[in-house]
Amino acid sequence: MAKANPNYSLLQGSYLFAEIARRVKEFTEANPDAAKELIRLGIGDVTQPLAPAVVEAMHAAVDEMARAATFRGYGPDYGYDFLVNAIREFDYGTRGIDLAYDEVFISDGSKCDVGNFQELFSDDCVVAITDPVYPVYVDTNAMAGRAGRLNDSGMWDQLIYLPCHEENGFVPSLPAVPVDIIYLCYPNNPTGTTLTYEQLKVWVDYAKENDAVILYDAAYRAYITQPGIPRSIYEVEGADEVAVEFCSFSKTAGFTGTRCAYTVVPHKITVAGAQGERLELNALWKRRQSTKFNGVSYPVQRGATAIYTPEGQKQTETTVAYYMQNARVIGEGLRAQGLTVYGGVDAPYIWLKAPQGMDSWAFFDLLLNEARIVGTPGAGFGPSGEGYFRLTAFNTRENTLKATERFARIG
Amino acid sequence: MAKANPNYSLLQGSYLFAEIARRVKEFTEANPDAAKELIRLGIGDVTQPLAPAVVEAMHAAVDEMARAATFRGYGPDYGYDFLVNAIREFDYGTRGIDLAYDEVFISDGSKCDVGNFQELFSDDCVVAITDPVYPVYVDTNAMAGRAGRLNDSGMWDQLIYLPCHEENGFVPSLPAVPVDIIYLCYPNNPTGTTLTYEQLKVWVDYAKENDAVILYDAAYRAYITQPGIPRSIYEVEGADEVAVEFCSFSKTAGFTGTRCAYTVVPHKITVAGAQGERLELNALWKRRQSTKFNGVSYPVQRGATAIYTPEGQKQTETTVAYYMQNARVIGEGLRAQGLTVYGGVDAPYIWLKAPQGMDSWAFFDLLLNEARIVGTPGAGFGPSGEGYFRLTAFNTRENTLKATERFARIG
Repeated sequence: MAKANPNYSLLQGSYLFAEIARRVKEFTEANPDAAKELIRLGIGDVTQPLAPAVVEAMHAAVDEMARAATFRGYGPDYGYDFLVNAIREFDYGTRGIDLAYDEVFISDGSKCDVGNFQELFSDDCVVAITDPVYPVYVDTNAMAGRAGRLNDSGMWDQLIYLPCHEENGFVPSLPAVPVDIIYLCYPNNPTGTTLTYEQLKVWVDYAKENDAVILYDAAYRAYITQPGIPRSIYEVEGADEVAVEFCSFSKTAGFTGTRCAYTVVPHKITVAGAQGERLELNALWKRRQSTKFNGVSYPVQRGATAIYTPEGQKQTETTVAYYMQNARVIGEGLRAQGLTVYGGVDAPYIWLKAPQGMDSWAFFDLLLNEARIVGTPGAGFGPSGEGYFRLTAFNTRENTLKATERFARIG
Repeated sequence: MAKANPNYSLLQGSYLFAEIARRVKEFTEANPDAAKELIRLGIGDVTQPLAPAVVEAMHAAVDEMARAATFRGYGPDYGYDFLVNAIREFDYGTRGIDLAYDEVFISDGSKCDVGNFQELFSDDCVVAITDPVYPVYVDTNAMAGRAGRLNDSGMWDQLIYLPCHEENGFVPSLPAVPVDIIYLCYPNNPTGTTLTYEQLKVWVDYAKENDAVILYDAAYRAYITQPGIPRSIYEVEGADEVAVEFCSFSKTAGFTGTRCAYTVVPHKITVAGAQGERLELNALWKRRQSTKFNGVSYPVQRGATAIYTPEGQKQTETTVAYYMQNARVIGEGLRAQGLTVYGGVDAPYIWLKAPQGMDSWAFFDLLLNEARIVGTPGAGFGPSGEGYFRLTAFNTRENTLKATERFARIG
């Protein structure tokens, strides 16, 4: 008798976005005219087109696929050399970080990599997550049986939660019990906050002392504007012994629909084998990827490589600046209404405190009904997100300005 | 202390292709001039360019990504409606198979899907594989702890092997002990053989009687030329209650480097939950994909959809016919030398018996040294592959003909 993975039954449905869709639908049915004015600042998806340099490179690659002499079949499982080397040179070499060729793995998305990476670890590893958090870290560990059970407060009883809120300046404290795997995402989704070099070093030192591994999600690194904020965890000394870094072209270059990302797994990181021997995580990830993955589309890898040309750099920086101007507009608009706002300086996410002790969902309803704006309730990202709310800078300037004008209705 | 998944240590390295590479390298170093003439009929990768209809559709989609008004961000996790509906209509509707919209899941490759699908099952499910077999079925179950340990005969002690060889006409017998998950691949990789409707029905009936699930890999279905051979397992009555079907554009339309595939998971298939309740595999796969996958590149999905246009159909059929002519050439060439040959009629793989009781690797060396041809030793696909050898029809006509002329050297 074929039996299901029992851990899947422990998962909740995708409550957050399903509930948002339900409330928006209800609003639309009750207010068909008002619904036409709805502005969505909820989902973290981009709106600006691919950079011309990327488009040109993709066309050229499609043409190569059209001729026998230049056609490409299976590519390397871990990515083409031209893209791997561009990443090594421009994302790391320029920051004094020297990565070996086989420490960089190209994939079709950070969600996949960050979701699959936990497979490399033993089921009894103790996992720590910041709270609020990107749900993929939680759900993929729950599917593997590492999260235990979901209790009535919406917390998994075997995960270690590291609360991030106003009171601690959104800087997680070290865990009270030893943990083996730590998920960190900076610039943070959903709070839009960052860690300084010194704050990040606390975690690298902890991981080294406790033989733990940091899974560092740097998907939003392109949005950092302030000095003193590391763009890679490898800027912190010793991080190459304990940290895996997940990067993506989704937000950097508008690749959410084009699909390309990469993961850095330094050779120096080792974990304990069953006989106490030390095993390279790099070798384990190679085995995982060569067995369950077949590389990224050739035209997509050519497109991603074009991001690193001088034109590609300039064009993608312009788009990032466009979104960051949106973030400033939203932040200023909310502050003008007396609201408390975090993030939006080094990240495309604005994390606001719901006014007058309102809970996340009450504020969602207020924003929807009064301002016709759809955002994301902070409670959807974990218990410590309650009372907060996420808005994104990814809409058009026009819609962002329009949304901002409506903030007066909720001030 | 972070600990590794202990199952990874049970895996062998990628012995097969590493050993092939080692022997080819040794030959090249010893015979630099002869090495220039090497013809590779080993790996199952295509050589012919993408169909013009596909190329045109991809260019148009890249142009859409270049303009804000037509730009696409995140696509649906399970694929765009235009591709899902083309598959439903042309791959199934035309054969009288009615699939619901949400029974088709688009992905970036069958290797990924077939590798990831086992996650949905409990770790204690008993897995059966045909032998010889595509190594991904074995390795992904070994990584999940379902395969047990590899013994001295190269067999995993918890897998059920279903030998396929000359004596049984490459038709696997039903297992002697009850099994829960059965991997079948037809047309078969590596043997190039097929099952008739009646032979496949035996397995569907077995699965229904034993509450088992068939994971049916149909990656080579486009190569079927003879009537009476099912192109989809759903042509067999009742299969939609027990079988998941994995299909790919890799071999159908030369997408090995472009990356697109799909998996069919009918709602009717249920497996036992922890409390004995019945759970839809469809719902479990949806949860898996929405949590760990983010959809396929938009231009790639547009390219795949163009395969279903009249021009696309004609163009891809021409390419398949080209490869199948290669298969005939190879088969005839080998038979002319008195060799026993299987496959190559409904599949791009030729499975030959090494002459005079020679083992797979001895024949590999003979072919390399005498004919300067690189193929794949059957023993690399499992114990029942010993004494056999795989050649592929995917090289150019010119190289295929040249290779065939050299068969005289080994006759």
